[in-house]
Amino acid sequence: MRILGVDPGSVTTGFGVVDHEHGRLSLVDQGCIRTPRGAALGERLEIIYEGLIAVISRTRPVVVAVETPFAGLNIKSLIQLSHARGVILLAARSASLEIHEYAPRSVKSAVVGYGGAEKAQVEKMVRLLLPGCASLILSPDAADALAIAICHAHTAGSASRIRVAAGR
Amino acid sequence: MRILGVDPGSVTTGFGVVDHEHGRLSLVDQGCIRTPRGAALGERLEIIYEGLIAVISRTRPVVVAVETPFAGLNIKSLIQLSHARGVILLAARSASLEIHEYAPRSVKSAVVGYGGAEKAQVEKMVRLLLPGCASLILSPDAADALAIAICHAHTAGSASRIRVAAGR
Repeated sequence: MRILGVDPGSVTTGFGVVDHEHGRLSLVDQGCIRTPRGAALGERLEIIYEGLIAVISRTRPVVVAVETPFAGLNIKSLIQLSHARGVILLAARSASLEIHEYAPRSVKSAVVGYGGAEKAQVEKMVRLLLPGCASLILSPDAADALAIAICHAHTAGSASRIRVAAGR
Repeated sequence: MRILGVDPGSVTTGFGVVDHEHGRLSLVDQGCIRTPRGAALGERLEIIYEGLIAVISRTRPVVVAVETPFAGLNIKSLIQLSHARGVILLAARSASLEIHEYAPRSVKSAVVGYGGAEKAQVEKMVRLLLPGCASLILSPDAADALAIAICHAHTAGSASRIRVAAGR
């Protein structure tokens, strides 16, 4: 299963693509979609949408895992972030990807084992869990996006093990 | 100038298209893009985006006027509304429309003359200001969208009168 993780942001949107096969994770692609400082929101949304469409056609994932908005943000940030999430979900729909959403705490919990983990701990675990990632320079947004993809791999993996154990 | 007004919503998005020429307003089109109850957010966003693209290609406006989120909404509604606004701004960008945003109070003020006006007063003024609208059944979302388009017509009209008066 190839998973695209997305860390949405109206200024910078991180993405990370991982393969998850027989319980093993491997890195396919990672990076950021950056929008110009001072650009109007409409222009930013177009750059995010087209950037994500380009990542999807290059890497051909089957599933997208997207972080849900963090409740602790201020209203203005929450509104801008939700605009970005809108076009991210639209890009996923238009590519017929299965969409899964995870709260930031669930992502940290799945990757580090603790929902209150720091960003640096998340990045460290991403590097440990993804062979080929150790020597890369990872931007914080790309590291978050990879963590979201890993979170989905673990969650989906557990769900399928539970189905097998239950004889389904 | 043909103006598309949009009243964004993740469940129902109202639209209204008006022509504004030599200070006169006329109705071109109006209606709602409705999304199925219980549909996932991604599916809704796709319906809103495609619905709006269809309205734009049918009516060929040059400008879109969109209402900004109302600060009094609860966080969950604000998040959902902002997702819808994201795909609405994207649709406007992809059709190369000029984008203008107006706060709900500015719209009421421009149409009724009072920022705290009730919905029924806004609808009544929309009917008075738009010939051809009097006998129509208008949904509340379509009436709001027409009010947003009228607000832009008035605002843009004043701005151009000010430019003329200033000799520019």
